[in-house]
Amino acid sequence: MTLLNKDHFIELDRQDPLAQFREEFELPEEHIYLNGNSLGVMPKASKEKARKVVEQEWGQGLIRSWNTADWIHLPRRVGDKIAGIVGAAPGEVIVADSTSVNLFKLAAAALRLRPNRHKILSEPGNFPTDLYILQGLERFMDGKVHLHTQPRQEILDAIDDDTALVVLTHVHYKSGAMFNMAEITRKAHEKGALILWDLSHSTGAVPVALNNVEADFAIGCGYKYLNGGPGAPGFLFVAQRHQAELEQPLSGWFGHANAFAMSDTYEPAPGIERTLCGTTPVVGASLLEVGVDIMAAADMGRIREKSLKMSELFIALVEQRLADHGFGLATSKRPAERGSQVSLTHEHGFAIMQALIKRNIVGDFRAPDIMRFGFTPLYVRYIDIWNCIDALAQIMEIAEWDRPEFKKITAVT
Amino acid sequence: MTLLNKDHFIELDRQDPLAQFREEFELPEEHIYLNGNSLGVMPKASKEKARKVVEQEWGQGLIRSWNTADWIHLPRRVGDKIAGIVGAAPGEVIVADSTSVNLFKLAAAALRLRPNRHKILSEPGNFPTDLYILQGLERFMDGKVHLHTQPRQEILDAIDDDTALVVLTHVHYKSGAMFNMAEITRKAHEKGALILWDLSHSTGAVPVALNNVEADFAIGCGYKYLNGGPGAPGFLFVAQRHQAELEQPLSGWFGHANAFAMSDTYEPAPGIERTLCGTTPVVGASLLEVGVDIMAAADMGRIREKSLKMSELFIALVEQRLADHGFGLATSKRPAERGSQVSLTHEHGFAIMQALIKRNIVGDFRAPDIMRFGFTPLYVRYIDIWNCIDALAQIMEIAEWDRPEFKKITAVT
Repeated sequence: MTLLNKDHFIELDRQDPLAQFREEFELPEEHIYLNGNSLGVMPKASKEKARKVVEQEWGQGLIRSWNTADWIHLPRRVGDKIAGIVGAAPGEVIVADSTSVNLFKLAAAALRLRPNRHKILSEPGNFPTDLYILQGLERFMDGKVHLHTQPRQEILDAIDDDTALVVLTHVHYKSGAMFNMAEITRKAHEKGALILWDLSHSTGAVPVALNNVEADFAIGCGYKYLNGGPGAPGFLFVAQRHQAELEQPLSGWFGHANAFAMSDTYEPAPGIERTLCGTTPVVGASLLEVGVDIMAAADMGRIREKSLKMSELFIALVEQRLADHGFGLATSKRPAERGSQVSLTHEHGFAIMQALIKRNIVGDFRAPDIMRFGFTPLYVRYIDIWNCIDALAQIMEIAEWDRPEFKKITAVT
Repeated sequence: MTLLNKDHFIELDRQDPLAQFREEFELPEEHIYLNGNSLGVMPKASKEKARKVVEQEWGQGLIRSWNTADWIHLPRRVGDKIAGIVGAAPGEVIVADSTSVNLFKLAAAALRLRPNRHKILSEPGNFPTDLYILQGLERFMDGKVHLHTQPRQEILDAIDDDTALVVLTHVHYKSGAMFNMAEITRKAHEKGALILWDLSHSTGAVPVALNNVEADFAIGCGYKYLNGGPGAPGFLFVAQRHQAELEQPLSGWFGHANAFAMSDTYEPAPGIERTLCGTTPVVGASLLEVGVDIMAAADMGRIREKSLKMSELFIALVEQRLADHGFGLATSKRPAERGSQVSLTHEHGFAIMQALIKRNIVGDFRAPDIMRFGFTPLYVRYIDIWNCIDALAQIMEIAEWDRPEFKKITAVT
């Protein structure tokens, strides 16, 4: 590759077919935000939506808004929109609870569909909450199932006749590495196992075709690439073919076939609604809908194209301008194995990231040595990539990171 | 009792020491809202708080707000404030998930503390989601425990040596009947059982003294008397003495001793935080804090005094003005057995309630024949009680309820 220069990035922005989407978001002034993989930015329309749901629907409509503002169908309505983003059909996705809670529900339900098998398979280093929830399930089932983790290169071979469920995160939160969803799903099914994909770092970031690959279950996050707001509810997917027999343990009243009959006996709703538990988090789900609407209006092929171009250019600039500064690349250079982020390793990664943030360029750090840079094509520009690496080069050249203020570890970054 | 007249109610409002709290809430114009037991009204300050958390903390602060806006301690901070309302100590209450999910966590955890017992005891007609969640737990423990329900008059005798956990709702959602928390808790402990109180219709409505009665566990709702907004997160209480040994199945990353170390192995946080699961629903929990702050500033003794006076007057007016119209009283006339609502029965209850709502007097209906009227002393006036019964008397006298428009059953009321 010839040497890249700033003009090239300016030109790419000029030609970017997604450029107008940036107008839909409110970014803090003078910021380059490369952390949408952790918490997506605020759509401008979220401000008006928050006012509407709080001041009008709650404040004025009160209890009637369950009907008049259709709060009652909010989880399904937003779920159907997300279905279009992840290659599912209407009625296969619903918004509910948190990603962690949704994993518990679906993993427990999956185990009941494979009662004579004893193994849940995942990988070490999977997103922590996924492993923690599966460990909770393991304890709760008193040894009837066990969680087995196998490094990703050996995952295919580890799926065996005793495997009830495979739980993997499609795009790795730390490295940005992407699994081949079709291949692993096929292998799981060959062995009679079920599979659950965590799409937290995929939804709105890379094309996902749940029904094409015949996935069984999936969960995902509302506050990353979907821009649903801090702690937005999660979502879950159950393939139509599993719904009628699905029994999940968190059988709360919103999952009942007729909640307002107020009967003493649980009877699951016929479809995806049986995965609901408690009362819908109305404000959070309403804000999520704003982000989902924007994402649903964008072309996922174009998002992927821009995302890959951005990560490729980022990697090229790292090689071109940071070669002497001790960075490693934790993300694959093969596009098919890469989500929408690039992770660099550096022994002083924490301090370097703090120095970058001080310059209003926001990525994040994950222990022990990972610096993450997320690319969200709807609001990040090519020039942001150039400016990020330019700042990083300056920080390294004058060892700007080597100051006490950048080494102080705070609660969360 | 001598005949009550309107002036008496006006005078009571004039002398009401809680009267100024009504200014803190925004009520729809010309409405009498007697449904705060279902969905509390909006505090005026919630509007500004919604703007702050959405536009500033999310929109401008983005990921840094976990530290700068202290999102990370939000569940505990609001929990500590709720602790003061329910007679618990700081560090015993936390805000999380929904009431239903919280019940699942704590009921499952309680069963692990009584591994050789097999019975969960509740009452028929308990709030549906409580029974549904316990049924879910029963199914998922594959017959190791069973849910037994016993009518409330026989509850004390039904607690036996095989009872692991008693789960009761302190104030009944339908009848407004209130259990004697001290007596039942004592009996449970005498038999070696644990007890979990559902405070959904108690918190902010009646005095609750969890530690005085030595309760083990409790759950509660954020969107009723606490005025936290539609689908606000719930809260849960674990007595200090149980925390160190508490193992709950929904062991997500926010309950980890050190979530951001991102280790592969779950290790529970030392205190109440171990009951957390997924990422905090920041917007919902922030709005809840507004309602909790108002409630924490009010004197619960005065709230109870006004609440009882209102329900007593309501019952007296029903007897005085509606005696010939076929209403029954589903709520006890003994103050100690009454929460903060009065429920009437009527065979045409649904249509009568619709006719009332048409007149902007909002209670609600629960099948088959219950009309509920909730009294929320911080924003309901005595004159509202008079006007409600006055309207009801008119509706009955001219059979206004007997119109097709009032008999059409819509999704939720």
